[in-house]
Amino acid sequence: MHPANQTKDQRVCARRDQIVAASRLCFRKHGFHGAGMAEIAKMSQLSVGQIYRYFVNKDAIIEEIVRRIVFKKIQIMTGGAHNLKQMASNLAYRVIGVQNIDHSKIDCPELSPEQNEIDHALMLEVTAEATRNPVVEKILRDAESKLFNEAKAMMTPYYPDMPEKELTARLEMMAVMCEGTAFRRLTQAHADPETLKTIYNQVFLKVFSDSTPSHTPEN
Amino acid sequence: MHPANQTKDQRVCARRDQIVAASRLCFRKHGFHGAGMAEIAKMSQLSVGQIYRYFVNKDAIIEEIVRRIVFKKIQIMTGGAHNLKQMASNLAYRVIGVQNIDHSKIDCPELSPEQNEIDHALMLEVTAEATRNPVVEKILRDAESKLFNEAKAMMTPYYPDMPEKELTARLEMMAVMCEGTAFRRLTQAHADPETLKTIYNQVFLKVFSDSTPSHTPEN
Repeated sequence: MHPANQTKDQRVCARRDQIVAASRLCFRKHGFHGAGMAEIAKMSQLSVGQIYRYFVNKDAIIEEIVRRIVFKKIQIMTGGAHNLKQMASNLAYRVIGVQNIDHSKIDCPELSPEQNEIDHALMLEVTAEATRNPVVEKILRDAESKLFNEAKAMMTPYYPDMPEKELTARLEMMAVMCEGTAFRRLTQAHADPETLKTIYNQVFLKVFSDSTPSHTPEN
Repeated sequence: MHPANQTKDQRVCARRDQIVAASRLCFRKHGFHGAGMAEIAKMSQLSVGQIYRYFVNKDAIIEEIVRRIVFKKIQIMTGGAHNLKQMASNLAYRVIGVQNIDHSKIDCPELSPEQNEIDHALMLEVTAEATRNPVVEKILRDAESKLFNEAKAMMTPYYPDMPEKELTARLEMMAVMCEGTAFRRLTQAHADPETLKTIYNQVFLKVFSDSTPSHTPEN
């Protein structure tokens, strides 16, 4: 957002928030196909015409939802890479929270942390949709790519001696572990969290504090 | 299946396969809500009445689909825990294949490995559905729990000195990494696969060869 006119921007922002919040609920309830612009409008307490002033179509709303969720995910992931112990503990207990997120960096933030579960479910829906809808696939890929690269730039000062290739691979591994844990939350927790915490810890230490390039696999 | 009458069982098996295959395509195309029994019947080239002879309702079909997919996943996961190097390489290259699966252990196996992508997409759909539909959530949890415990039993002989709690936590970590990698396949591959392979390797060695004094996995 370019704050040329802060007051107008704030109004636009609030409207977009309102529409995004309503759309999230509609998509959750009926899926992407089931939820139409009319329903989104009704839920937003706006007219369909008003909705189109803020989003050109349903895909644009999906894009905005994805952008916000992916942004939060990357924040969590890179936050974790700075505080490995906390991250290990969170993941072991299947907490993939929005805590410690710098909301000032998100345009039009949805601040309520209880939106977390909805985020997770919506991302599953988006990802499922992406496997059959090339437009959604592109939205997902583009948002993720842009933010992955931002995350990498944020991480670089913490690992000044690590080659970019190494840092990228380590961030990817962190993403794999976050996504995998998020996915596993839907299953029964078989493992003792404290035992699991130790393993997450060991893995993170291996992946992130061992800043020597990984060209010598220790076997 | 109890092979009291093998010929009849084989017939039942073939019919169930036929229905499962048709349902997979219907669910892929229209989602769980969109796909009705009439469409599944049409796609199966059977009558709706015939479908109900093999599955009491749509949930029962979903249950069978989930059971088969989860079984394959657990097979891949435990197979990986026996061959860490291969697993590291597969995951680094985002190959989550059905290779090396003992199909003799799956009732009514769908043998075609190209079904893999469909499996992945269907599981995303099932998991998204599970977040709002308690029946599907229970199906998913029960199938996964049963098979996770079978996997643990299969692994135990390889790690005879490892306390059960440890083995469970390590298997959970393997599951996290497999699911996370599967999820990340939808994003652009940022990391160099060879660099990533080394990291997967290090992590697997950390997770699976540590505290196994009696057994040194083959590297």
